Amino acid sequence: MGHRVCAIIRCEAGGGDTSREIEAMTNDTPAKANRLSDISWADFQALSLMEKGAYFRGEPPHTLIAQQFTRPMLNELCALATRIKRINKRREGANFLKTLLHDKRAMLYFAQPSSRTYLSHNAACQILGLDTMDVRDTKTSSEVKGESPEDTIRTFSSYVDMIIMRHPVGGFAERVAWMLAHTNREIPVMNAGSGADQHPTQALLDVYTLERSFERLGGIEGKHIVFVGDLARGRTVRSLAWLLTLFEGVKLYFVAPQQLQITQDILDQLDAAGTAYEVTRDFDSVMPLADAIYMTRIQDEWDAAGEARTTDASEYHIGAEDMPRLKDHCAILHPLPRRREISTDIDDDPRAMYWRQMRNGMWIRAALILTTFGREDEAIRYYDEYQPPA
Amino acid sequence: MGHRVCAIIRCEAGGGDTSREIEAMTNDTPAKANRLSDISWADFQALSLMEKGAYFRGEPPHTLIAQQFTRPMLNELCALATRIKRINKRREGANFLKTLLHDKRAMLYFAQPSSRTYLSHNAACQILGLDTMDVRDTKTSSEVKGESPEDTIRTFSSYVDMIIMRHPVGGFAERVAWMLAHTNREIPVMNAGSGADQHPTQALLDVYTLERSFERLGGIEGKHIVFVGDLARGRTVRSLAWLLTLFEGVKLYFVAPQQLQITQDILDQLDAAGTAYEVTRDFDSVMPLADAIYMTRIQDEWDAAGEARTTDASEYHIGAEDMPRLKDHCAILHPLPRRREISTDIDDDPRAMYWRQMRNGMWIRAALILTTFGREDEAIRYYDEYQPPA
Amino acid sequence: MGHRVCAIIRCEAGGGDTSREIEAMTNDTPAKANRLSDISWADFQALSLMEKGAYFRGEPPHTLIAQQFTRPMLNELCALATRIKRINKRREGANFLKTLLHDKRAMLYFAQPSSRTYLSHNAACQILGLDTMDVRDTKTSSEVKGESPEDTIRTFSSYVDMIIMRHPVGGFAERVAWMLAHTNREIPVMNAGSGADQHPTQALLDVYTLERSFERLGGIEGKHIVFVGDLARGRTVRSLAWLLTLFEGVKLYFVAPQQLQITQDILDQLDAAGTAYEVTRDFDSVMPLADAIYMTRIQDEWDAAGEARTTDASEYHIGAEDMPRLKDHCAILHPLPRRREISTDIDDDPRAMYWRQMRNGMWIRAALILTTFGREDEAIRYYDEYQPPA
Repeated sequence: MGHRVCAIIRCEAGGGDTSREIEAMTNDTPAKANRLSDISWADFQALSLMEKGAYFRGEPPHTLIAQQFTRPMLNELCALATRIKRINKRREGANFLKTLLHDKRAMLYFAQPSSRTYLSHNAACQILGLDTMDVRDTKTSSEVKGESPEDTIRTFSSYVDMIIMRHPVGGFAERVAWMLAHTNREIPVMNAGSGADQHPTQALLDVYTLERSFERLGGIEGKHIVFVGDLARGRTVRSLAWLLTLFEGVKLYFVAPQQLQITQDILDQLDAAGTAYEVTRDFDSVMPLADAIYMTRIQDEWDAAGEARTTDASEYHIGAEDMPRLKDHCAILHPLPRRREISTDIDDDPRAMYWRQMRNGMWIRAALILTTFGREDEAIRYYDEYQPPA
Repeated sequence: MGHRVCAIIRCEAGGGDTSREIEAMTNDTPAKANRLSDISWADFQALSLMEKGAYFRGEPPHTLIAQQFTRPMLNELCALATRIKRINKRREGANFLKTLLHDKRAMLYFAQPSSRTYLSHNAACQILGLDTMDVRDTKTSSEVKGESPEDTIRTFSSYVDMIIMRHPVGGFAERVAWMLAHTNREIPVMNAGSGADQHPTQALLDVYTLERSFERLGGIEGKHIVFVGDLARGRTVRSLAWLLTLFEGVKLYFVAPQQLQITQDILDQLDAAGTAYEVTRDFDSVMPLADAIYMTRIQDEWDAAGEARTTDASEYHIGAEDMPRLKDHCAILHPLPRRREISTDIDDDPRAMYWRQMRNGMWIRAALILTTFGREDEAIRYYDEYQPPA
Repeated sequence: MGHRVCAIIRCEAGGGDTSREIEAMTNDTPAKANRLSDISWADFQALSLMEKGAYFRGEPPHTLIAQQFTRPMLNELCALATRIKRINKRREGANFLKTLLHDKRAMLYFAQPSSRTYLSHNAACQILGLDTMDVRDTKTSSEVKGESPEDTIRTFSSYVDMIIMRHPVGGFAERVAWMLAHTNREIPVMNAGSGADQHPTQALLDVYTLERSFERLGGIEGKHIVFVGDLARGRTVRSLAWLLTLFEGVKLYFVAPQQLQITQDILDQLDAAGTAYEVTRDFDSVMPLADAIYMTRIQDEWDAAGEARTTDASEYHIGAEDMPRLKDHCAILHPLPRRREISTDIDDDPRAMYWRQMRNGMWIRAALILTTFGREDEAIRYYDEYQPPA
């Protein structure tokens, strides 16, 4: 992986195996797939995230963790998202897209409320003509009736061809995929946020937004990407940091007050992958170096010991006064919702990408869902035949 | 009705009329239909369930009580459900099905929460391309504004071509059908569970599951069907018991602790129909005789006097240890959700039909909805012309 | 504006400008449109309702206040609604309508609960094949996370091509339209009720119902229209009163107890428009003069000082005993829900229009949504080519 710079702050990395695995994820050979139905739950739980990934790339494919994506997969998803977006611009194209999954149904099971993630997935389904049903309540009648969570989800799965789920319990989506693999009706599971840990489609949309932002700047390779804010608990940062290890020469900066700084396990992954990084409290000095700045919100909904309240986060902020010091092409991202960390007065600046990022989420999810059903070729063929140049 | 065995426990049956009516329900002549708009509410309420049935088979047809179904209707619905299921397997077939009711809209009015019944009906609608809207809350704004329940439902009916409703008040769905019949816009009403009494589409899916289970064993006729658990209050058992009287030579076993045993009114219906039955507390001795076992959950949500808590239900259970004593073809059903009455360790046994039963609910409801709109012939024609042999 | 009768009770009207504007609204020349993106929020807020209207008729058009509609617009919407209704009667027509907006998606954002308005808009969308997503809760997760209402709605707008919204804060829908006009993705906003003030689509459906009721009686021109009940707070009355100023020779009667009587600002508008009116407490004497009676409910959900409770509203009521004194063609309207102000015993009288009014709401909203996307010509062309005479 050639020219990667050594990390400034660097810890003892375990993972020689991990390095070899990552090597496999970044080159162009297709990644292997294992069968979830062939492994016990205990054995499965003992696997590393990257080893798990091989089980999610089976048939049907599940989308559960950021670590399951390889670089070729990312390339294909991003290219497909852009094609779908362009096809959708014209009425006949939008009508064509709606035929692609017209024969399928998806369940949106949101046991943890999240309007924007729900809406983004729902819109992606609608773009492809996929009918959706939703359960958006934690207290379903079945729980009242004493049913196990696994029976509940197996029941829900009976009616549909795919489950898109958000759940407060970490690892629950994985458990569902494993459980369904042991029935005679395994359907794809898409993790729309699970516990404090994984939110793989958010990481995908972030990568897609970076890829679009650097479209005429040689892509993500070699860029300086700065993460700011609550890095300890934000699952989007954790997932995205990992995906960025798949790009050569990237350097990551983690800018946060000490209590909210990125955790060691992520740094270990970066070390194992040979990805350069810097950990600092000084946003001011890093700002001018950034090709992209990824702002985050203080997540006090996960706040156990009051970390957020006792932290002065006022300097982890971007406003109009900072814009002259940023690079002309610096892309500003934010998973939203925001509080005060980005002033609304920069919303109209061309570098503010966070609104486009929202909409990118819809396109990349459409690409992912279409790929899950193995029908991406139909969109590509339509694009090649009918699409006027962009 | 030929060879029906006399019931072991038998009470004084009234109903000579009922017997004659049942005769009409089981032979092949089409059952008569009366017009709901021709009868006053008081007169209507005084009718027997079977007499009411004649009013629900009008134009448009309503689905309100198990007693409205005749044997020919059951045969046609089951055959149609299987055709729909097979057509749906192929992409072009699924796309064809979605044209059948593409011009219609249905209201899912669930004043009593029930995820699985809601989802099953919603999926059935989606299979047929029927657009749905839902009201899944008891406290709608209109009630807050002092509107009568009848005005509310008439308003909802304004926007759609069909109402699928679940309501805590027994008989409310009947009242709605009667009320709409006295307006200039009568639309079909489908009862998705009403009070503690009727859940006719659940009974239909149970019959369909039995019919599929005994497909190569001569059908439901002559089979021994064992009901276990909370038989006093489970509306599915009450509805299903009645539908089974339409099949020759069936024998029913009711296995429950005394407080939760089947009630006399059901036994009276069986007597009137000449259907054999046995009432017992001894599951152990009945188990080996069963062609089908219908397990149920203790329904303590209906629990007034704490019956459930004071009852020892531990012996009304099936687990791996019982499987060797069951017939090789014994079908195990359960309306779900379950608690402990069926161990998860038999979920993979081919005799465990309860998960397939879930999915059967979707197919039989699709068949019923299509028939409600009188378009079943279109599906049959497509099946005959395009469907490859199963 | 020729023959308008002078108002019996008349106050000092300001508005010479208003008169000239109204002149423009009633003649046949197309009304001008201004660009929302060209005006500051402060300047926009200072505009009169009629001046604001010019900003909502831009591209894309927003539907925010009754005052934005001109007489030609009303004529076209009513004619289109009737065409859509007739096309929808036949299966192939209904299927055609569903192609019209098949490539679009709408957000139903109901921060204030309202089943009927929600369902009516949703049905209108479904008739046109427009996919919908909904947020029907005030406490979305984003508010919990500290997001501003504007960020929330901008996020929601990312996923769709139109927002239909109901909100407890008066003017919020206008603010949203203005805000979106200042982004690079302005989509149409439709106000489905905002604060105590505006409910423009309700006013449209009321006009449409009057237009249908007087179809063979020379239309709305010159009719006596009586408003009864809670006129102080009912936003439907306020919006409708204004729209009726666009019809020549109309006379309005406001019948209410003193505390709930129509407010001076509405009377000022009528004066400015030269529309005749009478303000009275005496329903009895007005009843026989009425071509239409618009009953309303005491809106005690807006009740600050207990006005409703201290008011005797018992005489503001219609029942079977009143019907002989009404004109044979007198149309009885009510925005519903009702309490006791209309007895159910007149529901079957042909003069009771309130149930048809419900359904008219669906058709006029479909016409409005189709017009919003500029595709009304496709429906008109289909109607002219394929529709058999009514």
